[in-house]
Amino acid sequence: MQRKQNIIPLSNVKINGGFLADIQNLIASEVLPYQWAALNDEIPDAQPSHSIHNLEIAAGRSTGEFYGEVFQDSDLAKWLEAACYCMIIKPDDALQQKIDFAVELIADAQMDDGYLNTYFSVMAPEKRWTDLQECHEMYCVGHFMEAAVAHYQATGSHRMLDIMERAFDQMASVIGPEEGKIHGYPGHPEIELALMRMYEVTGKEKYAAYADYLMDVRGKQPFFYDEEQQTRGYIKYPENIPFGRKYTQSHMPVVDQVEAAGHAVRALYLFSGVLDAAAHYDHSDLLHTMNAVYEDITTKKMFITGGVGSTHVGEAFTSAYDLPNALTYNETCASIALGMFSDRLCRLYGQAKYADVLERVLYNGIISSMSMDGKRFFYVNPLQVNPAIQNNNPDYNHVKTERQQWFGCACCPPNVARYYMSVGDKLYTSCEDTLFVNLYAQSEVCWDSNKLALHTNYPADGNIRIACECAKPCKVCLRIPDWCENYTLSGTADALSESGYLEVELLEGTHTFELHLEMKPKRIWSNTLVSADAGRVALQYGPIVYCIESADNGDRIDELCILHDSDINIIENGFAWGLPELEVNGVREHLSGPLYCAKPPTQVPVKLRLVPYFAWGNRGKGEMSVWIRER
Amino acid sequence: MQRKQNIIPLSNVKINGGFLADIQNLIASEVLPYQWAALNDEIPDAQPSHSIHNLEIAAGRSTGEFYGEVFQDSDLAKWLEAACYCMIIKPDDALQQKIDFAVELIADAQMDDGYLNTYFSVMAPEKRWTDLQECHEMYCVGHFMEAAVAHYQATGSHRMLDIMERAFDQMASVIGPEEGKIHGYPGHPEIELALMRMYEVTGKEKYAAYADYLMDVRGKQPFFYDEEQQTRGYIKYPENIPFGRKYTQSHMPVVDQVEAAGHAVRALYLFSGVLDAAAHYDHSDLLHTMNAVYEDITTKKMFITGGVGSTHVGEAFTSAYDLPNALTYNETCASIALGMFSDRLCRLYGQAKYADVLERVLYNGIISSMSMDGKRFFYVNPLQVNPAIQNNNPDYNHVKTERQQWFGCACCPPNVARYYMSVGDKLYTSCEDTLFVNLYAQSEVCWDSNKLALHTNYPADGNIRIACECAKPCKVCLRIPDWCENYTLSGTADALSESGYLEVELLEGTHTFELHLEMKPKRIWSNTLVSADAGRVALQYGPIVYCIESADNGDRIDELCILHDSDINIIENGFAWGLPELEVNGVREHLSGPLYCAKPPTQVPVKLRLVPYFAWGNRGKGEMSVWIRER
Repeated sequence: MQRKQNIIPLSNVKINGGFLADIQNLIASEVLPYQWAALNDEIPDAQPSHSIHNLEIAAGRSTGEFYGEVFQDSDLAKWLEAACYCMIIKPDDALQQKIDFAVELIADAQMDDGYLNTYFSVMAPEKRWTDLQECHEMYCVGHFMEAAVAHYQATGSHRMLDIMERAFDQMASVIGPEEGKIHGYPGHPEIELALMRMYEVTGKEKYAAYADYLMDVRGKQPFFYDEEQQTRGYIKYPENIPFGRKYTQSHMPVVDQVEAAGHAVRALYLFSGVLDAAAHYDHSDLLHTMNAVYEDITTKKMFITGGVGSTHVGEAFTSAYDLPNALTYNETCASIALGMFSDRLCRLYGQAKYADVLERVLYNGIISSMSMDGKRFFYVNPLQVNPAIQNNNPDYNHVKTERQQWFGCACCPPNVARYYMSVGDKLYTSCEDTLFVNLYAQSEVCWDSNKLALHTNYPADGNIRIACECAKPCKVCLRIPDWCENYTLSGTADALSESGYLEVELLEGTHTFELHLEMKPKRIWSNTLVSADAGRVALQYGPIVYCIESADNGDRIDELCILHDSDINIIENGFAWGLPELEVNGVREHLSGPLYCAKPPTQVPVKLRLVPYFAWGNRGKGEMSVWIRER
Repeated sequence: MQRKQNIIPLSNVKINGGFLADIQNLIASEVLPYQWAALNDEIPDAQPSHSIHNLEIAAGRSTGEFYGEVFQDSDLAKWLEAACYCMIIKPDDALQQKIDFAVELIADAQMDDGYLNTYFSVMAPEKRWTDLQECHEMYCVGHFMEAAVAHYQATGSHRMLDIMERAFDQMASVIGPEEGKIHGYPGHPEIELALMRMYEVTGKEKYAAYADYLMDVRGKQPFFYDEEQQTRGYIKYPENIPFGRKYTQSHMPVVDQVEAAGHAVRALYLFSGVLDAAAHYDHSDLLHTMNAVYEDITTKKMFITGGVGSTHVGEAFTSAYDLPNALTYNETCASIALGMFSDRLCRLYGQAKYADVLERVLYNGIISSMSMDGKRFFYVNPLQVNPAIQNNNPDYNHVKTERQQWFGCACCPPNVARYYMSVGDKLYTSCEDTLFVNLYAQSEVCWDSNKLALHTNYPADGNIRIACECAKPCKVCLRIPDWCENYTLSGTADALSESGYLEVELLEGTHTFELHLEMKPKRIWSNTLVSADAGRVALQYGPIVYCIESADNGDRIDELCILHDSDINIIENGFAWGLPELEVNGVREHLSGPLYCAKPPTQVPVKLRLVPYFAWGNRGKGEMSVWIRER
């Protein structure tokens, strides 16, 4: 069933209205400037970043000590990547100047031999490449490579690609399969997918081959990190890393990793890169493994919001169906990484089910991390919040009940920025004359000499008008989302394919047709192996998962139940970027006085108001829950 | 309303049948020998204790290094206390020999100046009394004092009392209110209540005065532990003790501590001792505080089982109504300490409500910690267990889903032994000619020249036959438990008093009468501020809280619901010491296949079988839940 599709580059896709355009406008106007200020330590009262100052020290432009996490460089790298995408879709002179400044700063911070990592170049150049397990050098190189690809795509300049080729060559001269080199691999994967992107834009096989090497060597015995610790003679990080070798996905060869384990972001970045490299080299066994682990994640370990990583301990996957709504970690970056893994699978296999997950993270578990003013962020994305409990119980120390200005470890905020600024290249894919419409957004796209314009308010409603100008005969394949039970298409199409797409054949000329995806609010239940959701229901409208908040429903929201036979009303034009809100009949069960009592709670009829999950916490402090009791 | 009652000593109470006798027999025949073997490191595959070996090293009878926690001595102290109670109620030569051995070992381990703590005498005698915050010297002295009191009560010998008087005098020569002494107090309270017990048996005011000093100095500014750390020059324990000063109840003067905070066992031992000392010295403000903090605990922070301490982080209290059934800590010792606090309040105020809590911990949250063969123990007592989830998620590392042979920190198992072996002195209290029957158990008691025999299967049923031989006119006050809505008494009594007792006046002579406490299974609901129990119900029969287990109901117990209108049937003679089991109609809701689905679960009628909570986990591995979904 492999049917590899091509990315349609951002320059050929224009998102020109609706929800995703609103988010991109927010990122361009507010988020990128705010994050630039944060990276320059100019946000009052925020946790410092020092990311740019570290580079300035390494570049010899400033003095002082390195500050922050060993991977602090990657915060700037992700911002730069986001800024470059922004230059493609919304060119801006002021932003270009910041980009130019950043690129030359990186160039100056690079050591003479090509090495690029400010922690080691400032603090301990003699210890370079001695702690691949936890010091994130390859991780930072990977993020700079992704920035380089974006910079090339935005500007056509090879400046950043050249910087990263020098960094790569230095790294590959020290670490690699050849005799005399360190036969290591990164404790935090990321570079694998970055190498494949470098390969895609440069065509230089060495990048792909290196990704293949990293994939092959990982988790083999004798275990490299044991040897590395022995050689290094010290253990920088605690011996008791949770989950042991699983934490770094080094417990077994990648080809055997059919169950997701350990640090969720590491796992999903790894799987994304492995998928790209395995597809390139046609490693069918690895592709089989990647499909298996994806099934494991999306059918057993994923929250309805697309959140993954059920425990803060090791920021990690746990066991199947362990989906604790309040206690979970659900790092923003993990949902982003799940999106990356999903869109790669979607391109490779052309199956709508992958885009279903991509859509789930895009509209729920990632965007939840950013406030609607673009200036506050969640690192952790729970599905149930009760500040009175969580702010007073250290089991929930990882959960913030309000979005934060910045983080000492600030991987998530710039990751959100780069993800939404590049979402254009996930809407559509192509394969020869065929265009696949994977996600619906008001937009225009060019492929294979043809043009398509898609007019829609999606995800506010499911009405989609499509206009094509076909220079030659072609096909358009329209994904029918998993949440959609009924749809109509004006014009003719084949029956829905097994892959979940409606295929429309078009002759040369101009065509318009309409797709109506019936979008009505619906109740969703969890597999009953998910104890945490027992007796509870979630409401979803199209791809949007909803929640109840104190702001609309008062406190003590666990007193609230949805009546099982109530209709769900749509309230148009809610506060969350115009998406509808939902209203449903319920009861409030109340029992006060003693702690335990032989009399049941009283029941008072109430109307429950629900808002999109991603928008929770934008209207003051309070409780929130996605899964709501059902009576 | 203060109406101080007297303890009736164990020698005047004989428990001669029923549930509590079964437990005492088990402890005498199995638990004390097993724990003696554990303390001597003779249990194969169990975590080592070294408690006795540490004393042997300190006594110069053996060599080697101290091993274990700084409070390892207290494990033997608690065992010795339990063994002495056993000698009162079930004299046994072999046990007497162990007791004699232990007492002489302690005597030999005592340093020449009276100091008694093997950690410091073996490892660092020069550092004695330099870390009152975390090194538990006073805690261990306190437990040895309690053992001394029990030894005196059992044997009439002053040997242990003398040892502990020397230990006390040494301690009081170093620490105390006088100029030139350390103005400190223990990081782990316990000695306060032990001092009051020493005072009670010896009549020596110095013990009570010292307890009063410790209560008075605690939490005053400047904070002693800050000074102590400064003086010591090192911080043995992490700087980031969770909850800061609250962890040790040193955040404010005790008189201001109207909300329970920090380490639950420390808090409740403290409050128990404070209550005794405050009552002795008639500190009305402190008594007021102790009543307030008791209300805080029992109306906002106590599980239905009598478990307290909602987080493993700091083994601590959290905020009001934060009662997470699976994640909680509920240390066995904390429930024991809540029992101690409750029975002291009951004696002081003569209110049945305190005995209601005492009964709750006695039949639920304490005895749950011990397997029915007396050889396995829980440290943590959750109300919901799912091994598949909890054994694979490090958030639950503190939760063991099966009882353990022993613990590196083994405070709980011998605490259980001493608690149940001394329960006889909690059944009855007296005040002049009046006998208060606080707990019902098949037993005989003598007070004030009178005798009472109580015949009952309680808590298996609520039928209680009482026979009195009164040498002179007297009163018998019978507690009507909080769970009992209807009762009948043969013979005449005043109306139920505000304090919750039925007062029966008896003339000289022989009397028999019967009290029938209507005992029927009932549904219990939580205050709806307890989110964790929302939509759930617990079943209780008399004082016994029930649970569902996989052993009777299969796995996936969160699929199970109790039907709200079903009768609850009693199944006599269950596996748990003959207590009844319960049966109720329910449904199993099931939804398999996808993780999330727009179709509701199917419902299949089932019979649910419930067993006493304390007996869970005695029939193999599996899931368990006290709070059950209700439909």
